[in-house]
Amino acid sequence: MKVLILGGAGMVGRNLALRLVADGALGGQPVEELTLFDVVPADVQGSGRTRVVAKTGDISDRATVDALVAERPEVIFHLAAVVSGEAEADFDKGYRINLDGTRHLFEAIRALGDYHPRVVYTSSIAVFGAPFPEAIGDEFLTAPMTSYGTQKMIGELLLNDYSRRGIFDGVGIRLPTIVVRPGKPNKAASGFFSGIIREPLAGMDALLPVDDDVMHWVASPASATGFLLHAATMDTAPLGARRCLTMPGLAITVGEMVAALGEVAGPEAVARIRREPDQTIRGIVAGWPRNFDAARAAEFGFTADASFQDIIRAHIRDTAAAG
Amino acid sequence: MKVLILGGAGMVGRNLALRLVADGALGGQPVEELTLFDVVPADVQGSGRTRVVAKTGDISDRATVDALVAERPEVIFHLAAVVSGEAEADFDKGYRINLDGTRHLFEAIRALGDYHPRVVYTSSIAVFGAPFPEAIGDEFLTAPMTSYGTQKMIGELLLNDYSRRGIFDGVGIRLPTIVVRPGKPNKAASGFFSGIIREPLAGMDALLPVDDDVMHWVASPASATGFLLHAATMDTAPLGARRCLTMPGLAITVGEMVAALGEVAGPEAVARIRREPDQTIRGIVAGWPRNFDAARAAEFGFTADASFQDIIRAHIRDTAAAG
Ligand SMILES: NC(=O)c1ccc[n+]([C@@H]2O[C@H](COP(=O)([O-])OP(=O)(O)OC[C@H]3O[C@@H](n4cnc5c(N)ncnc54)[C@H](O)[C@@H]3O)[C@@H](O)[C@H]2O)c1
Ligand SMILES: NC(=O)c1ccc[n+]([C@@H]2O[C@H](COP(=O)([O-])OP(=O)(O)OC[C@H]3O[C@@H](n4cnc5c(N)ncnc54)[C@H](O)[C@@H]3O)[C@@H](O)[C@H]2O)c1
Repeated sequence: MKVLILGGAGMVGRNLALRLVADGALGGQPVEELTLFDVVPADVQGSGRTRVVAKTGDISDRATVDALVAERPEVIFHLAAVVSGEAEADFDKGYRINLDGTRHLFEAIRALGDYHPRVVYTSSIAVFGAPFPEAIGDEFLTAPMTSYGTQKMIGELLLNDYSRRGIFDGVGIRLPTIVVRPGKPNKAASGFFSGIIREPLAGMDALLPVDDDVMHWVASPASATGFLLHAATMDTAPLGARRCLTMPGLAITVGEMVAALGEVAGPEAVARIRREPDQTIRGIVAGWPRNFDAARAAEFGFTADASFQDIIRAHIRDTAAAG
Repeated sequence: MKVLILGGAGMVGRNLALRLVADGALGGQPVEELTLFDVVPADVQGSGRTRVVAKTGDISDRATVDALVAERPEVIFHLAAVVSGEAEADFDKGYRINLDGTRHLFEAIRALGDYHPRVVYTSSIAVFGAPFPEAIGDEFLTAPMTSYGTQKMIGELLLNDYSRRGIFDGVGIRLPTIVVRPGKPNKAASGFFSGIIREPLAGMDALLPVDDDVMHWVASPASATGFLLHAATMDTAPLGARRCLTMPGLAITVGEMVAALGEVAGPEAVARIRREPDQTIRGIVAGWPRNFDAARAAEFGFTADASFQDIIRAHIRDTAAAG
């Protein structure tokens, strides 16, 4: 089969690509060709079984998307997006890529008429906005408080409608904040959740812009890959009209994260964290969800991490493996 | 002040225009100019106080919308839409008018930069989809089951985001099904709710395609006008980030509607109703909301009809007045 990842050079896309090449298969079917599309070139190597094709371009150009879709991949992972901080800072860019780009993909598929792939779309818990109940259930309203959340939610609505009409077979997964994000920080306002673990483990200082009692919903990069694979292969019939699911995660406070870091890596690591309250980030984070009851995702077989300590240990292993 | 109604020749728009001309004012301020924009020419007469300008065009043409917005009306009522049945039958037309047209309006306002009007947007209870709780509260998820509902919900999300950013001052009102709709039936799948009252009162037969126990959420044309005027003049600060409200209405079954018709107009009227089950309409209606707890709208001062008998009597008066 052919698989296409839009945003294939990004953090989540790259991990997914590595896993697909390692498995050489998806849902029991061999993956002969894996196309990684992104504005920047992806650096994943193929294998004897799986040919990897890296392509560059912009999903906000309809013709580019038409050309990708013309290859009729059986599964499309749509991860290409401008993240929260950037979509908030650049109104036009956020709408052009996150909304128009998503529509281009959906319309390109519709234009073919007889092509109905599985489409896995990465939404975000940013589709929710305060005030919240103690734990956000699957029937709680989506009321985004950022342009990014708005764009992600519009993508969800379109995915549901196009799927309902049989244009494609969509699954939307609302990712928790992925922690520990490897590599360099990106422009997401949630970056510090990873920074306070990643930087100290690398012997560097990290800034903590919010209070210790800030609670958030997180999952590891490996869990994100697991969600995507499951979304690509699950039976979608029982989802009915509601094809977008809040993914499982851990509800954890910043204080608990720091304590877990101390447990796994010792007090020297914790000492690397510098508390520098930032009113802007505090304000943004105050509107973010803290805790979920992701019952539907659990019912449909999605699973996440057992503990934050495990997440930290996995990050240490991954970093060592990456050299 | 200047007021603009997009969809000003439609049922709700025309009633609103008549009321604005009769009042000659909105929120205590004189309305000097009222522009009625629609694909078909509006036929509302102005008064000495209020000049009425009827313009024709299509909101899916950006330049047309730019020209309307260049007049900088203080209040814009955005009612222009392709209704549910048509948006379901014609995918492209629904998205072009209901989604792209709405975006054109919002973007035309943003393009001016220093112009921040009140924008009142008519959403619909079609943003909700089954399964439902006994009564749908203000925190229940929106999960549309039609393309029309999807497009209306996307408009809500955009309205919230543009308002949050201070581009305009938006209020979205989710109208119940407006009953009794005067004049000819339109292409809305909900048309029969009005037909079973309007046709018998006019001495004509009416088809009833669903069962008597179908419950629905309705409000009168006069209530719709009242909602719009209130949305145009209310203080929006207490709405916070959630600027779209389910309007109050009556939860009533088809059987109760028919009984009310009998009470007001006698058994001859009821005898005009012919039960002809239609599987397609039944299927559509099965996914529609039945009952709401519209507490937030009530809290913000929106009020609706006291009884269905009153709604029928108002329709009889309006029809007589219209000759
Ligand atoms: N990482 C998280 O915590 C998180 C949480 C919720 C949702 N998500 C979503 O998951 C997806 C992947 O996240 P990530 O962490 O890998 O983000 P990322 O920023 O690392 O990857 C996104 C990729 O999309 C690419 N991209 C941006 N604009 C593009 C365009 N116009 N055309 C083609 N490619 C474009 C970027 O170059 C980048 O490589 C995104 O859609 C993101 O919004 C991520
Ligand atoms: N009547 C109801 O029961 C009800 C319920 C919920 C929501 N709404 C919404 O309220 C609004 C008004 O409803 P209505 O009952 O008056 O509908 P309507 O169909 O009578 O009026 C809509 C008007 O919009 C005009 N229009 C359509 N496409 C246009 C375009 N491209 N450019 C300019 N004008 C265009 C139509 O010509 C029509 O006159 C609509 O947005 C509708 O979706 C109505």
